[in-house]
Parts: sequence; C-alpha cells; structure tokens
Amino acid sequence: MPETISNKQKKLSLIAFSGDFDKLTAVFTLATGAAAVGYEVNIFFTFWGLDAIKQKKGRSFIGGNWLTKLFGFMMGGISVSPNSRFNFLGIGPKIFRYLMKKNNVATLEELVDAAVALNVNIYACEMAMHILGLQKGDFIHEVKDVLGVSTFLDISDGGQTLFI
Amino acid sequence: MPETISNKQKKLSLIAFSGDFDKLTAVFTLATGAAAVGYEVNIFFTFWGLDAIKQKKGRSFIGGNWLTKLFGFMMGGISVSPNSRFNFLGIGPKIFRYLMKKNNVATLEELVDAAVALNVNIYACEMAMHILGLQKGDFIHEVKDVLGVSTFLDISDGGQTLFI
Amino acid sequence: MPETISNKQKKLSLIAFSGDFDKLTAVFTLATGAAAVGYEVNIFFTFWGLDAIKQKKGRSFIGGNWLTKLFGFMMGGISVSPNSRFNFLGIGPKIFRYLMKKNNVATLEELVDAAVALNVNIYACEMAMHILGLQKGDFIHEVKDVLGVSTFLDISDGGQTLFI
Repeated sequence: MPETISNKQKKLSLIAFSGDFDKLTAVFTLATGAAAVGYEVNIFFTFWGLDAIKQKKGRSFIGGNWLTKLFGFMMGGISVSPNSRFNFLGIGPKIFRYLMKKNNVATLEELVDAAVALNVNIYACEMAMHILGLQKGDFIHEVKDVLGVSTFLDISDGGQTLFI
Repeated sequence: MPETISNKQKKLSLIAFSGDFDKLTAVFTLATGAAAVGYEVNIFFTFWGLDAIKQKKGRSFIGGNWLTKLFGFMMGGISVSPNSRFNFLGIGPKIFRYLMKKNNVATLEELVDAAVALNVNIYACEMAMHILGLQKGDFIHEVKDVLGVSTFLDISDGGQTLFI
Repeated sequence: MPETISNKQKKLSLIAFSGDFDKLTAVFTLATGAAAVGYEVNIFFTFWGLDAIKQKKGRSFIGGNWLTKLFGFMMGGISVSPNSRFNFLGIGPKIFRYLMKKNNVATLEELVDAAVALNVNIYACEMAMHILGLQKGDFIHEVKDVLGVSTFLDISDGGQTLFI
C-alpha cells in the first residue's frame, strides 16, 4: 500500500474518544490512509474508544469491581459497537458491515489489523483506564504505552490532531 | 463580508462526519466565518455529513440498491436533519431554525449558500460514497472533487483541521 | 502541578460544542493537563458546551424568551449533564462521578476550578449566545471575552485545535 514517502514526515494524531462503530471506522480509515502514504500516525484511545483495543472482542466482564465490570460488559468491544446514528438496536452496524464487505471496503477488524501492520502508534489513556478499571493486559499487545494527556499532546504536537 | 485578507493565507479544514443539524450548523459557521476573513477553507464531507451536500434537499431514495436507498431516505438531507441533543422527533431543529431566524442568525441553508459564494472548497469522501451507494451526480455542482482521506490530509496539512 | 515549562510556549485550543458529561470531562482533562505543563490553553464554548460555564449550576430558566428559557432549563448545567453513551436517564454520569471519586480522579467541577486556577483562557461564542438568549452575565466571571468564530480561529492558529 505505501506509495509516496515524503522527505519530511507528516504527522496525524487521533484522540479516539468514541466507541461508536462508524466513528471507530473513521479513526482507522484515517489512520491507515495516512500511514499508507508515509505519515507518522499516533492514536490515543480514551473513554469509550478503549473498546477498540481490547483483547477480548466479544462482551466480557473486564474491570476491577462490579461497576467497572458492568461497563466493560456493556461496552462489549468492536464486534458489538453501536452506530452513532441509525443504530436500531445493533442492526445499523450490521448493515454497514454488509455494505462494506459488498463494496470491497475493509471492515473495522481488517482496518485495525492494517493499522498494526502499518506501524501506527497505539496509546491508551491512563486516566480513563483508572475510571473504567482496565489494565494494560486487557488490551492487545500492540499498545505501545499507557499515557496521560499531556504526554500525548507533546507527541502529537506539530501535526494534524483530531478528536473523534 | 470579506474584510481582512492576511498576507500569508491561513487555512481551516473540516472533516464533516456528522449529519446532525446543530453540528452541520457548526461546520458552516466555522467555514463561512473563516472564509470571510480570508482563510483557505476546505471541507471533506464523509458518512452522515454527505447529507449536507445532496442535491435533493428532502427525503428521497438515492443509492445503488435497496439498502443504500433506505439509508438515503432515512438521512433525508439537511431540511430534515436531527439535533445531536434535544431532537424530540425533529422539533428541536425546528425550534433552532426559529430562534436563528428570530435573532437574524443565518439559517443552515443560507450558510451553505454563503460557503459556496465565499469559495469554500467542498470535497466528498470516496469510501463513504461507495458504502452508501452515492454518485458524484447526487451532490450539488459545487463539489470540487471526490477524494480519499490521504489526499485530503495533504490538502489540510499546515492549517487547523477539525473533525466534526 | 506545573512541572515543565518549555521555552517556546505550545498552544492547545478547544472548541467545546458538546454539553455531554463525558465530553466536557475530556475538555477539562485536556485543558488542565496541557496548562499544567505550560501550554497556552484556549477554550471556545459554543452551543451545548455553554452549559459548562453557566453561573447557576442546577436547572434554571435562563434566557430571553420562553423558548430559550426552556432550552436553558433542559440543558441545566454540568451538575445534570448527560453521558454521550450509557446515560440511563442520568444514572450513567452518576456512576462515572462515583468511579472518578473512588479512583482519586478529579471530578468535573474540580476540573473546571483547576482550569480557572491554571489560567486557561475561557471564551463564549457570540452567535450561540444569541440563539440561546444568553448574556455574558449568565456565565462565570472567568469568561475572558465573548467572540465570533473567526476571532477565535486567529487565537487558536499555530497550535493544536480540537472540536469536542
């Protein structure tokens, strides 16, 4: 996929706050699209966005106490993430998945794999992990580091940064 | 409206993902506000945001098959776009429109026209068009080009870029 | 809290559009995190985000006419702001507040106070105030100025700008 590598490396950084299926699709489409043409790409997963990088893809009771376990179950990972619009109890994302397959557009799971393959830097938000009772071990191995916001802002400085 | 044109042209780029009435109002307020003082303004319409640049303003069955036609009908264009908050089955946006008129604030449709008049660059997202079964001909004539994300990121590079 | 002050001051600017509890928490976490390490931080509160800087924290009928008063009452301020996900009629934010307290993470109200203490620049959006019938006196005293979007974009130019 990589075609043009510019001399001075451009940078794209994404703060992935939403856990919605369509917005996570946007996160990984931007990340892989930019990485494929030679950008340095950094993603900071926080709040509901942490869903996208959990090891267990289905619903599971992850978390330190019953409350955070409940949130972990409800969030449930990307295989069950809802649409921000026209969700219809989960049918909306299923239709989207069908349309993406049908039109040879990469699915969300394929996009996550592509991001990893293209060396996108994946970070997890320390504070959100505290609130939701998540540990580094709950996430995929490709998570580079657990950071606070100010450290991430120093990483993303000097490029284009988007909050999604 | 243009008052100050700075020597070195500043740049504002917007990724218009949302189809919500209030967020689209934000997109066009930022775009026209910036263009009016001499910014280069680029908008990349994707996913639900594509609604804002459809030719047919009311509900209509646009799309390649019955599923995308259904999405086309449900999205329905800006005249029926919902609020992200306090929508109340469409009454929320109507109240907003009333308040905007009453306070001499430009309505969403007027803002779209103003953006075109101020030479805001309007782009449509290729991938989202594939998924939703939309063709370039479904959009207003002022759409400058159909692009992928990496091309748009090169256009937006070096300015302020917002995901809305 | 301030630890490192870099030679050339970095800049973070936030357009706070959402009135959701979780997104406002993100706004103030980013703002205080950046200000604590020496960034210039600017926040432009607009639409639902104006809720965060109202003087009266509970529900109250602020606004010029009955319609805007109604919106003022429904928005209600940060003590009753909803979650963007898993709101459950307001129980979601309450659980979040509990988890934040329990894990020694600053609550939203504490974050607002911290932002003020760290000299974060707080601006209110003129147009949204017109629509919602709000006056400068309805907001906390720390609001530095009432601005239009183009003035804010000139302030935020040259740093990282996020739309939340």
